[in-house]
Amino acid sequence: MEPIIAPSILASDFSRLAEEVQAIEGAADWAHVDVMDNHFVPNLTIGLPVVQSLRKATSIPFDVHLMITDPQRWAPAYAEAGAYNVTFHAEACEDPVALAKTLRAAGSKAGLAIDRDTPVEPYLELLPYLDTILIMTIKAGFGGQAFMPEMLDKVRDVRRRAQINDLEIRIEVDGGIAADTIEQAAEAGADAFVAGTAVYGAADPAEAIRNLRALAAARMGGA
Amino acid sequence: MEPIIAPSILASDFSRLAEEVQAIEGAADWAHVDVMDNHFVPNLTIGLPVVQSLRKATSIPFDVHLMITDPQRWAPAYAEAGAYNVTFHAEACEDPVALAKTLRAAGSKAGLAIDRDTPVEPYLELLPYLDTILIMTIKAGFGGQAFMPEMLDKVRDVRRRAQINDLEIRIEVDGGIAADTIEQAAEAGADAFVAGTAVYGAADPAEAIRNLRALAAARMGGA
Repeated sequence: MEPIIAPSILASDFSRLAEEVQAIEGAADWAHVDVMDNHFVPNLTIGLPVVQSLRKATSIPFDVHLMITDPQRWAPAYAEAGAYNVTFHAEACEDPVALAKTLRAAGSKAGLAIDRDTPVEPYLELLPYLDTILIMTIKAGFGGQAFMPEMLDKVRDVRRRAQINDLEIRIEVDGGIAADTIEQAAEAGADAFVAGTAVYGAADPAEAIRNLRALAAARMGGA
Repeated sequence: MEPIIAPSILASDFSRLAEEVQAIEGAADWAHVDVMDNHFVPNLTIGLPVVQSLRKATSIPFDVHLMITDPQRWAPAYAEAGAYNVTFHAEACEDPVALAKTLRAAGSKAGLAIDRDTPVEPYLELLPYLDTILIMTIKAGFGGQAFMPEMLDKVRDVRRRAQINDLEIRIEVDGGIAADTIEQAAEAGADAFVAGTAVYGAADPAEAIRNLRALAAARMGGA
């Protein structure tokens, strides 16, 4: 599979989201949209009406990352708003399989996120129901944190299980992904990469994306 | 006092907030910023990082309306981010006087909001500690609801108490304020007016603001 590069709007200018997302259109595969509610994480970013407005401004697929409590209640509306993929947190969801089915029925891919302090083992059985599994390589809630290489053991566990069972699933990493960390993540088995400041902090975001893609592709090929 | 017209970004295009707020700069007095957290109200709009980004894009004073739980924890950061006025909900706050003092110490005005189903009487004693009292003329949580004239009794109660005690306080109304409702609100004693679709849904937002201001000023003078 080709690597997916998903720049995170968390590192963009929230007052000009349409422009910021248009700037990566063509270069990036997905726009990673960080939804935070002050409760699941101690930060409040943007929610459904913003995603609805932004959906009209660009054609890039939205990779919505719900860092919110009670995703059963709120997630389907993001699928209905036109998100390509909707990822909710394992820690916030009592029945991930049911929610994944609901999301697919609502027209989006279904993703499950595993936060820093959550083991991945209990969720390996759920992989057949998921399109994406997002392994946090920081603690969810804020941008700009340093990448934690020890999280890549979870990526290896998922990759191994996916290979054994011949599953088609995107293994996404989020947190501290940049030119100096993306290769390790790709070698461990990740094939979708959220990048915040590494893209939006770059003088040329499109060039930064191309560079990240090349670094990832070289190591994914070798896996 | 001159009327304050505060267009609500809830009715604007959230993907181009800088542009939308710049469009009312000069014409409006405050930009009304609706912060919702999926918990105090069943909607999630924007939070602190968005207000911080937007603060850099415009010089209009921000009237931040926190429809969130636990404002004691979150409100001061909005004052520190440069909000002119920070309003929190009576229903969400155990000690409004303490929070109002904290907000003033952090450099903003302090506002208390009274939702549709909350009586105002228990809060009349707190007026000396407040710069703004926001009387909801709908149920907080969504734009586009119809104005509820029966809420104006609360405005009258506050105006009466403010006159008796010679208090300087802005009495703000929020919900369904438009050309056909602003006069009643001004007659009841309101002097700050949040308007959403009446401004952002108008062909010429600046002209809509001028019209609302003239209607309010004529009736405030007669009060």
